[in-house]
Parts: sequence; C-alpha cells; structure tokens
Amino acid sequence: MMNTTYIAPLHALLIKAGLTDDTDHLQVMEMTLFVTLLCACFILGHLFEENRWMNESITALVLGCSTGLIVLISSGGTSSRILEFDEELFFIYLLPPIIFNAGFQVKKKQFFHNFGAIVLYGVLGVFISFTIISAGCWFLFPKLFVGNFELKDYLALGAIFSATDSVCTLQVLSQDETPLLYSLVFGEGVVNDATSVVLYRAIQKFDFAEMSGQTALHILSDFLYLFFTSTALGVVAGLLSAYIIKTLYFGRHSTNREIATMVLMAYLSYMIAELFYLSGILAVFFCGIVMSHYTWHNVTERSRVTTKHAFATMSFIAETFIFLYVGMDSLDIQKWRFANRRSSFAMSGALLLLVLLGRAAFVFPLSAFCNLTRPTESMFINMRQQIIIWWAGLIRGAVSIALAFNQFAEPGASKSSEHATIVSSTIMVVLFSTTVFGIMTKPLINFILPPQLQYVSDLSEPATPQVMGLDPTLQLSLLSNEEQNNNSPTKMMRKASRLSLLIHAQRTTIHRLWRKFDNAYMRPMFGGRGFVPTLPTAIENEDNGMYEGKLTTT
Amino acid sequence: MMNTTYIAPLHALLIKAGLTDDTDHLQVMEMTLFVTLLCACFILGHLFEENRWMNESITALVLGCSTGLIVLISSGGTSSRILEFDEELFFIYLLPPIIFNAGFQVKKKQFFHNFGAIVLYGVLGVFISFTIISAGCWFLFPKLFVGNFELKDYLALGAIFSATDSVCTLQVLSQDETPLLYSLVFGEGVVNDATSVVLYRAIQKFDFAEMSGQTALHILSDFLYLFFTSTALGVVAGLLSAYIIKTLYFGRHSTNREIATMVLMAYLSYMIAELFYLSGILAVFFCGIVMSHYTWHNVTERSRVTTKHAFATMSFIAETFIFLYVGMDSLDIQKWRFANRRSSFAMSGALLLLVLLGRAAFVFPLSAFCNLTRPTESMFINMRQQIIIWWAGLIRGAVSIALAFNQFAEPGASKSSEHATIVSSTIMVVLFSTTVFGIMTKPLINFILPPQLQYVSDLSEPATPQVMGLDPTLQLSLLSNEEQNNNSPTKMMRKASRLSLLIHAQRTTIHRLWRKFDNAYMRPMFGGRGFVPTLPTAIENEDNGMYEGKLTTT
Repeated sequence: MMNTTYIAPLHALLIKAGLTDDTDHLQVMEMTLFVTLLCACFILGHLFEENRWMNESITALVLGCSTGLIVLISSGGTSSRILEFDEELFFIYLLPPIIFNAGFQVKKKQFFHNFGAIVLYGVLGVFISFTIISAGCWFLFPKLFVGNFELKDYLALGAIFSATDSVCTLQVLSQDETPLLYSLVFGEGVVNDATSVVLYRAIQKFDFAEMSGQTALHILSDFLYLFFTSTALGVVAGLLSAYIIKTLYFGRHSTNREIATMVLMAYLSYMIAELFYLSGILAVFFCGIVMSHYTWHNVTERSRVTTKHAFATMSFIAETFIFLYVGMDSLDIQKWRFANRRSSFAMSGALLLLVLLGRAAFVFPLSAFCNLTRPTESMFINMRQQIIIWWAGLIRGAVSIALAFNQFAEPGASKSSEHATIVSSTIMVVLFSTTVFGIMTKPLINFILPPQLQYVSDLSEPATPQVMGLDPTLQLSLLSNEEQNNNSPTKMMRKASRLSLLIHAQRTTIHRLWRKFDNAYMRPMFGGRGFVPTLPTAIENEDNGMYEGKLTTT
Repeated sequence: MMNTTYIAPLHALLIKAGLTDDTDHLQVMEMTLFVTLLCACFILGHLFEENRWMNESITALVLGCSTGLIVLISSGGTSSRILEFDEELFFIYLLPPIIFNAGFQVKKKQFFHNFGAIVLYGVLGVFISFTIISAGCWFLFPKLFVGNFELKDYLALGAIFSATDSVCTLQVLSQDETPLLYSLVFGEGVVNDATSVVLYRAIQKFDFAEMSGQTALHILSDFLYLFFTSTALGVVAGLLSAYIIKTLYFGRHSTNREIATMVLMAYLSYMIAELFYLSGILAVFFCGIVMSHYTWHNVTERSRVTTKHAFATMSFIAETFIFLYVGMDSLDIQKWRFANRRSSFAMSGALLLLVLLGRAAFVFPLSAFCNLTRPTESMFINMRQQIIIWWAGLIRGAVSIALAFNQFAEPGASKSSEHATIVSSTIMVVLFSTTVFGIMTKPLINFILPPQLQYVSDLSEPATPQVMGLDPTLQLSLLSNEEQNNNSPTKMMRKASRLSLLIHAQRTTIHRLWRKFDNAYMRPMFGGRGFVPTLPTAIENEDNGMYEGKLTTT
C-alpha cells in the first residue's frame, strides 16, 4: 500500500534510535507513525474545535509539516518524507470513502432543488476557469521567466487548478446553518472534481500537434459521455444493492452482510468506473445518493445507525489522512532540490491570482443567470452568498496535488527544473489556500452572513433549522409538500419574469413526475422510505421511531 | 498494498478481452475483481446459511479456487494467481481487525472464568503439539523420502502446524448455544495463534548449532516475556483510549472522533507490538477486551451501536478476504511446478496425521487436569466436549500459510524442490482441514451434542441462553452474583476434592478482589458500565435502555 523506497532516512534514524534492525519492518513503522499522527490529529482537532480559526485539515497539515521537519532535520536534510504521495493510494483508497459519504449524507432535496445551479457551476464553471487559468499561465509564465512549457502543460495546469477541494469545504460550511450555500458549494465541489479529472484525462489523450476547433468539441463530447455513463453506473450499482438486500431478505438476520454489501457495492461502482476510464468520483457519489434513498431503508435499524456513522468516520479518517499526507510531503527535499526557488514563488503567486480570477469569472455571471430562473426574490442567490460561494471554492487540495504529480512528477520528468518548479508551486498554492483561505473562511462567513442574516438568506429553504438537522433520508424525498406551497402561484406571480416562471414550472413538473414514478415503480421494486415489507416486523416494531430522534442529534 | 508482479497473465488476458491497455491499471483490476468476489461470497454465504454443511469460509475457498482455475486456464497454465499471498498484507491489514473484534465481542465472563483452561490449552498445549509434530516430521520424513531438512525446518514445521485457525472456529461454533465450548476453543485459538507465532519467531532467532537444554529454557523465557509485555501493551492501549475519550468529553459531540479513536488506538496497539517484535495478536486481543469493558461505555449510544457492528463487519470482511485469498493462491502454478507431487501428498498426509495426534495428545490430558480444579461435576469438561474441543481445533488456516511462506517461500528458497514441496503440502493441509474438517464440524457437534444435551453440558454456565445472547459488556463484569450462588459452599461440598475446592476458592477470591478493585479505582478513572458521568445527560436519558434490547438481537 505504501511506497517504502523513500523512507530510508527515517529507517536509518530508527536504527540509530535502536528501534529496529530489520528492513521488512519499514511498513510497520510507517503505519505506526501514521496511526499515531492520526490519533493526535483527532485529539487536537477536538480540543481546537471551539477555536473559530482552526479545523481538522489545518491541524493535520501543521502536524504533517512539523513531522516532516523533524524527519528532515534528524535525517540530516536528506529527506523529509516518511512516504511519497502516491496517487494510487489517494485515488484507490482515500478518495472513494470521502466522496461516497458525501453522496450518502448530502441533503438530497437541497441538492436536486439546486441541481441546475450546481451543474452550471461545476461543469460550465470549470470550463471557464480552465480557459482563464490556461490562458493566464500561457500569457504570464514567459513574462515571469519561470521556464517554457508546451501547450499541453498549460492546459494541464488549467485543469489541475480548476479542481476545488470539496473536502475542506465540508469542514468550513455548515449544512444546518447555511443549507443553500452548503449544497451549492459542496455539490459544485463534487461535480467540479469529476469535471476537472475528466478534463485532465481528455487533455492527456489528445494530440495537440493538429490542434483545431474539433479538439475542443471532442473534449466536450468526451466529457458528456463520461459524465452520463459514470452517473448511470453509480445509479445502477446503488439500485442493485437495494434490490439484492431487499430480495435476499438480508434484514432477516445478518447486519454484517448488509453493511458489508453496501460498502463493497459502493466501492465496486468506483472501481468499475475507474477500470473503464470513467469518473469513479461521479459514480460513487451518485451511488451514495441512491443508496441513502433506497438501500438504507431496506436494512435493519441497527445497520442504519451503523452505516450512517461508520461511513462518516471512514470519510473523516481518509480526509485527515490526506491532509497529514500533503503536509508531510510538502517539505519533501527531492522536489525542492530541483525546483528554482524564485520562480516557484513567482509561479505560485501567478497561479493564486489566476485561481481567484478564474473563479470570480464564473461564479458571479452564472449566479446572475441562475437568479433569472428563480421566480421569487426570496429564492435568489444574493450577492453576499455569491461572495461566499466564490471564496469557499478557492481552496485547492489533494486532487490538484495528485494531478500535478501525475503530470509533472514522473520519475524522469521531475528531474527537469521546470517540472519540479511546477510541482513545488502546486504544493505552495495548496498549502497557502488551505491554511490562509481555510482559516479566513469561517470568520468571513460570520462577517458577511451573521446568524440572523443566515436565516434570511435561507428563506428559500422551507425546512426549519430543526428539520435541517434531520439526516437526508428522513427528509421528504426529493421534493417536499411545503416546497409546493412555497411556490404556490399566488406567491410566484409577484415580480417573476415569464422565463423564470416557465423554467420553474417545468422544474416543479419534473419533480412531481419523478415523485409519481418513484412511488409507482421504483419503491415497490427497490424499497425505500416507508416501503419495507420485506423486513421482519418483529425488529421493525421493536425499533420503531427509536432511531429517528437519535439520527437528528449527530 | 497488492503485489502486482504476479498478475501479468491476468493482465494479458484482460488486454485480449479489450478491458485495459495500461499497466497502471493492474491495481484497479485486482481490487475490482476482489471486491466482486467478496460480494459474491456474502450473497452465496447468505443463501447457503441454512445449509448445515456450508459456511462463509468454504464458500470463499471454493470461489477462490474456481477463480484461480479460470485464470489458470485462460492464461494458458502460466499462472493461477491474481495476486500473491503477501504475509505483510495478511499480518498488517487482515489479521488485526479479526482478532480485535474477537476480543471486543468475546464474553469476558466466560473467557476469564475459563482463563486457566484456555491458557493451559493455548500455551502448554502448543508446546506439546509442537514437540510431537516436530519429532514426528523428523522421524517420518526420511522414511517417506520427501527430502532432507535441517533441525530448524522440523522445528519450524512444528510451530507452523500448531497454529489452529481461530477464524474458522468462530463460524463453526455458536457462542449462544455452546458458550463453554466456544469460549474454550476460541479463547484457545487466540492464545494459540499468539503462542505459535512467538514460538516460530523464537526458533528463527536461535542458532541451533550449539543446541542445548538452555535453548529450550531461552525459548520459554522469551515466550513468557513476550506474552506478558504484549498483554500489558494491549491493556494500556485500551485504558488510554478509555481515559482519553472520558476526559476529553468526546461524547459531547463527535461520534466520528470517538469511533475513529477507538479503531486507531486498537490498531496502534497491534502496530506498536509488531514494531517491538512482540505479539500484536495478543496485544490487540486484550485491547479489545479492555475497550469493551471501559471505553465502549464512555461513548454515546450511537457510537456503541456503530462500533459493535462496524467492528464485526470489518472482521467479517477480512475473514472472507483471507479465505478467498488462500483459495486463489492454492492453485498457484509457480509453487506446484517446483514441488514433487508424490512427496507433497505423502508429506501432507503425514502432517495431517501428526496434527490429529499432536492435538489429541494435549486436549484429553489437559482437560482431565482442568477437571481436577473444578469443584462440582456439573462444571467438568465432559468427554463429549473434549472430543469437540479436539476436533474444532484441527483446522489449520491462514496463519499456518503465512508462516510457511515466511519460512519456505523466500524468492530464492522456493526454487528448491524440498521447500516448494513443504509450501504446497501446507496448502493442501489447510485446504483439506478447512473444507473437510470444517464441513464435518457442524454435523459432528449436532451428533455428539444434540440441543438438549448442549443445555446439560452447559449447566456450568449460570447464565440462561437469553442472558447469553447479551453482548459481553451487558453481562455483569467478570464475575456475576448468580455464579457465587451457584458455587455456594453447600453445593460445593458435594463430591469435590480438597485441591479443587482450594483452587476454586482462590479463583473466586481473585475474582472478588478484582471486582472490588475495578469498582474502587478503575471505573472512576476509566469509566465503564454504569459509570458515565461525563456524558451529556441529555443524550443519556434520551437513549436510556433503548439499545440494550437491540444489542441482544444481532
């Protein structure tokens, strides 16, 4: 699982310390160290929780950096890393649980209600910022004398720095206080991760010798194909798990089998997507949504509580692990040796600037466009919220690093000074944005949206805070009745453009049709809320309504 | 995490099938295949559950074998394995969750009540069977012309084949129907794994050029040192987790942190033990016991349900994975090519015989000795039970394979025909014992101990079946009041030898002292059942007694 070729210095150190005398022992050492650091992160993170400036990611980053520093010093400056940042480890083991849990716990109603906006931000937005960042690099880098790159590199940079860090967002925004913002920023984060990974791969594939208008079209069609196939795959996997658990009466006795099946089916969807070069991120995200809508309701109450918290914990550990990882890797001397200090700083400055611009360039116009489609002013995305959406998405994280490594840190390539410079400046951008932007986000939100305003700003959300506290699956599915009241004609007539009325009417119709379809065909087949005839009534009665209360107080 | 050097054939196959064109993809393929097979195992295992002959392990073994066969055929007989059996993967990732969960879910009362017997079987027993198997091999192998080995190899074989498979036992015996047998066989299994691993390592360390009586003493003292340090380490880790969670008020809000801390602290105990060449198995087992006695009671009800089922599921997945793994590896052509068919069969026959003898040689005498220390006949381990204890421990599993690989399958060594033969016959013994013995165990138990007899045979267990159903932590700690009534002087006077009375009186005293100590010092410090003042009363009240009922119906 871990690359042991880089930890010789640590090993030498431990031999000096008389801790080991055996090279087979490296993996054990790595694991021990990592687990210890993880525990430290959780404890510190808990102690700092009251602190408005800190959060788990930053704790992990700092802890990782300091460990790296210690190793660097104790190993006499030869290496800082306990283990190399390994994309495989990241993409195969760490990312799936995070994204799956995101889909599993996301408020489906919120998410689908804002689906249009999310896709706009997450797809069109990425293309915009991708264009701006690529063009910006192509324009600025020669002026900064940071070295010359091919067109492909510029485009890669564009894709790499269009990937926001959905992980950190989760820790900064609160799903209960600012549900609209959360679903927008976070939903965008997921779609956006997928988009930029897909975009990145598309760029890798194409040969820019004969660049033409066709290429852009190719990339776009390629992207659309991947987007829909991946989503379909995830949905199918989710439905399959629901069907299996429902028909095989797993609920009858085996809690373990239920949980195991859910975990493995979700992971399978990710893996199959990756196997066929689709977007595992999208697949597992939608698999999570489907599972929380159908499968979760077919299992025993025990399994519900367990899955809910076990998935959250898995994702929590993976997140912390990633930041620890990035922190440790950031001081890696191998990369810095080949990197040109001056140009690294210049480059990361330029990149940060472009990231700020690139995001501003799509958040504000697209939000304005979204508001056109919203009938009542109360449902508008107001300027304050737009600023927060812009800001919260500035953080760049592990996805950017993983892609940057993939592109610029090949064993051979990383020897070239330019590429080493790009890698090191990527790390600087990630560290800076995560710490500085991350630390500033909480206070910024409190400044721009004081609690009372938060409430106002979420008038568009019919649900009361206490209802917000409920977990997604306990909310009315996909569209609630209050919502319809909320959008009752009388209300909507008030200053609403024809276009917006039309679009909104359509959206409402789609929702209604979906709900009809869901109740008529899907639930009888795949189970789901309020449809659990296959479960042993004994257990059902015994558990009835016991957990609901509990689930709200997470 | 996975060794990708052996899957070229599969890869070639997949390229032929047009499934991939990229070698970075190997790991993804492995994972996909494995996860798919795991899902299949759970579903089949569930379907076959009613079937008295089947269980998950056998399903997994069969499935693994057939997959191996398919790959073997499709790859034109070049290789059967998707990935090599990797001891690191086994000892670092798969074994810890299984053993930890065992300690976490074991009935502490049962376990400690039979602690004397368990240690006798698990330690003295292993030494006896180790002696018999080593001597037997040393005597038989030359006669069978299966090649000549050094003394070290014979001793290694003795240690390797003294390790019973605690995993399979769990699936064959029921903790609720035959609690006494379960706690004896399973408790022995754990101690026995630890003993044989420790013994194996001790043998590796010693230089048998100057073999002497001293060596035996050395091994023994070495073993005692490892046994106590490992246990202490596990206990300390458990207490630490309890203390951290209690004092930091984790219960206050973060369920994720509680669960993460428990998992990681347990894993840490295993890792630290391995790091210092102690027995991680023992450490994590006792860590699990301590956690279920203290930590588990300091967390929120949500966390309790989650940990209980999440740990069980983790262990469940790991078990299935192991058997799948062994099944796949069993057909591995590399090993068979160098192995001498005839001598493999002869050797595995001899080994099976020695295993049968070696186990009989300690189960019956030691049981007889145990009965001496039991005052009332109702508490005796009767002959029927002894037979089952003997039989249930005959299964050899992944630990044996892991050790055999470690000893005889080094890249260089495995080329030698003798060593290849040993490895292949180890696999044959494991497959045979797991399938044949495993399949026969359930019916055997029903034949030797029909349900009504089971109840009689467990008269020594004061608890009623329904109490037995409760999870360990819900039972009265370590010694119950009923027990004391059960052993009231009047009862005990009836045909009880002086010795047994003395020993039993001492045991009771120890238990009573421990309970006093536990209530007076440990619980106030580390929390534990009925001592949770640090938890938010709100949650406590809301949850009161809700889960207890649920926990019983797993």
